[in-house]
Amino acid sequence: MIDQASLLNPAGDGVTGLPGHQFVSTQGLALDCGLSLAPYTLAYTTYGQLNADRSNAILVCHALTGDQYVAEPHPVTGKPGWWDILIGPGKVLDTDRYFVICSNVLGGCMGTTGPSDVNPATGEPFGTNFPVITIADMVRAQAQLIDHLGIDQLFAVIGGSMGGMQVLEWAARYPTRVFAAVPIATAARHSAQNIAFHEVGRQAIRADPDWCGGAYQIAGKRPHRGLAVARMAAHITYLSEPALHRKFGRSLQAREQLSYGFEADFQVESYLRHQGSSFVDRFDANSYLYITRAMDYFDLAAEHGGQLADAFARTPTRFCVVSFSSDWLFPTAESRVLVRALNSVAANVSFVEIPTDRGHDAFLLDEPEFHQVLDGFLSGSAELRGLGRR
Amino acid sequence: MIDQASLLNPAGDGVTGLPGHQFVSTQGLALDCGLSLAPYTLAYTTYGQLNADRSNAILVCHALTGDQYVAEPHPVTGKPGWWDILIGPGKVLDTDRYFVICSNVLGGCMGTTGPSDVNPATGEPFGTNFPVITIADMVRAQAQLIDHLGIDQLFAVIGGSMGGMQVLEWAARYPTRVFAAVPIATAARHSAQNIAFHEVGRQAIRADPDWCGGAYQIAGKRPHRGLAVARMAAHITYLSEPALHRKFGRSLQAREQLSYGFEADFQVESYLRHQGSSFVDRFDANSYLYITRAMDYFDLAAEHGGQLADAFARTPTRFCVVSFSSDWLFPTAESRVLVRALNSVAANVSFVEIPTDRGHDAFLLDEPEFHQVLDGFLSGSAELRGLGRR
Repeated sequence: MIDQASLLNPAGDGVTGLPGHQFVSTQGLALDCGLSLAPYTLAYTTYGQLNADRSNAILVCHALTGDQYVAEPHPVTGKPGWWDILIGPGKVLDTDRYFVICSNVLGGCMGTTGPSDVNPATGEPFGTNFPVITIADMVRAQAQLIDHLGIDQLFAVIGGSMGGMQVLEWAARYPTRVFAAVPIATAARHSAQNIAFHEVGRQAIRADPDWCGGAYQIAGKRPHRGLAVARMAAHITYLSEPALHRKFGRSLQAREQLSYGFEADFQVESYLRHQGSSFVDRFDANSYLYITRAMDYFDLAAEHGGQLADAFARTPTRFCVVSFSSDWLFPTAESRVLVRALNSVAANVSFVEIPTDRGHDAFLLDEPEFHQVLDGFLSGSAELRGLGRR
Repeated sequence: MIDQASLLNPAGDGVTGLPGHQFVSTQGLALDCGLSLAPYTLAYTTYGQLNADRSNAILVCHALTGDQYVAEPHPVTGKPGWWDILIGPGKVLDTDRYFVICSNVLGGCMGTTGPSDVNPATGEPFGTNFPVITIADMVRAQAQLIDHLGIDQLFAVIGGSMGGMQVLEWAARYPTRVFAAVPIATAARHSAQNIAFHEVGRQAIRADPDWCGGAYQIAGKRPHRGLAVARMAAHITYLSEPALHRKFGRSLQAREQLSYGFEADFQVESYLRHQGSSFVDRFDANSYLYITRAMDYFDLAAEHGGQLADAFARTPTRFCVVSFSSDWLFPTAESRVLVRALNSVAANVSFVEIPTDRGHDAFLLDEPEFHQVLDGFLSGSAELRGLGRR
């Protein structure tokens, strides 16, 4: 396995060894917190070709621990892209037809400027001196990238979970730049329970002495134990109780009987430990702090005087809202809140709850009904947008 | 605040400074793991008077982080007993009428033998050399205490959560010794999701360098950070999403605006941090490992050849099964499994799901409908048992 750190900046000169593209914004960004970030870098990938009209671009927004490797093998883990199932020639996001863009979010750790990068003011990694960023900051940075690519209007902005928050922020902030929006398994604001789970993860990281008050890079350490615990806690919330029961139940791991000890007797324990230990190879602990914080802060109504509907007043965007029946992290009730707000401003919105027992993670998995819904919505929207029939 | 350690064994001579009684079993106990524990101590409290027939005793079984201070102030925290609302003169468990007994479970840290006690074989605290114990071990130890008190048959065994597991184990193991059983907010086996949450807590403790491989007492340390994270994660599962939303929503803690930092901006964060930091003053980290493990191992059907009904064949015990509608840790579906098994052996069983939005913790709270159900069941059972009318 390739170590993430060696890819990110092998020569220590700000140039990463990561596959994909980089956009360096010298213009910089005025952040919601009041500070500025200039210059900053967005690392991104593209698939397919931008057409002559520049009208076939789809921006895919990734979730908390995702990144830009959406349709190609991950450079650290070697695993297929996280939406490989949906993106490629002939697939739902058909790269023979669409130009698909995916950028690592601000605060991330896969080439986009984040807390593990060097602070030009000090010559040392930002650590917790990195400014706290918001979903809106992430989206404004993406908009600069889209400007840089010469695209006025995106055909579609699509994403699940935190990616869906970005979709909503895009549609609210740049209504004329988003022809179609697909917020999946998401919410217009982060719930108290979700903030609570994030806080557990952050406390687990901060409790690890190797976190070193955030300056672990300078200390030559990495808070792997704390980050693994954070991942384990979060991972439970991505699944459903029925899915855990179906997959693991109380089955024992490579043994016939209980061990009467604290090793991983149960398969579900072994699975969780693996989720924790493999995660730390590809993710940065401070990025985890910053990105969870951005999600906690997300409250689209609050950005619009307390009325969610006001975020979408007179929106020309076509919406397709998707939820999953067993998702208890972003339950269908959250999508209904969103749909009611869109309906109240007479927006063009369709809404589908996909029946599945796979919980929040369903948006990443082979869910044929979900893929059919997405395919139908994109095909219809493409025809309306003058991209022709498939 | 009184430090727990100073109460447990102030003189280092095995005699604690804790209020209540101690039962020392010189007979010892053959544990499910194959090891024996002899001698061992059970710390317990009693309220009310045992009648001449010795027929009015109620055993109350506590949950994971509970203890014997069920109806009197806690010696460490000073807070009222955890079921003070239910136990006392004129209350549902009327101490003018019943003799109420509550013992700290085996593996606990409030005076009953557990991992923080001195291992007679080494002269040092057991730590992780303490044998892994089970719910059945806890119950067999309690049965020795009940023998010691000269009680053949308990009028009732009552408990919620892990306490409910003990109630079920009592009824299955000693059917003629339990006149009435009240398993509340519990299950006949621990689910995959619940094992997963416990494993996160255990990993958080083990990740704390101050855990010292379990030998933190010898090292003069305590893994407070890991234990606090474990408690925070668990605490979320005790509440419901609607209760968290109602109590906290996205309200900010002692501030008007977001801080754009990592302090506890949201009330729910502040609340969780408090839950974590106050817990470590009254609980032992190794006890947390052992008791969560006992719950994970609980599978009453597995103890009876795979058929839950066989655990209750020909039971003479009267059952009152209680669940709470918003409890997602021990959902009503788990109680239904239990009730179906009891029905299939023609047991005398009533079952009530209490409507509430307070989640698993409801069994500890002022829930009038729950208390009425309990009162009705106990009064009717008391009359049948010849304890007269109230």
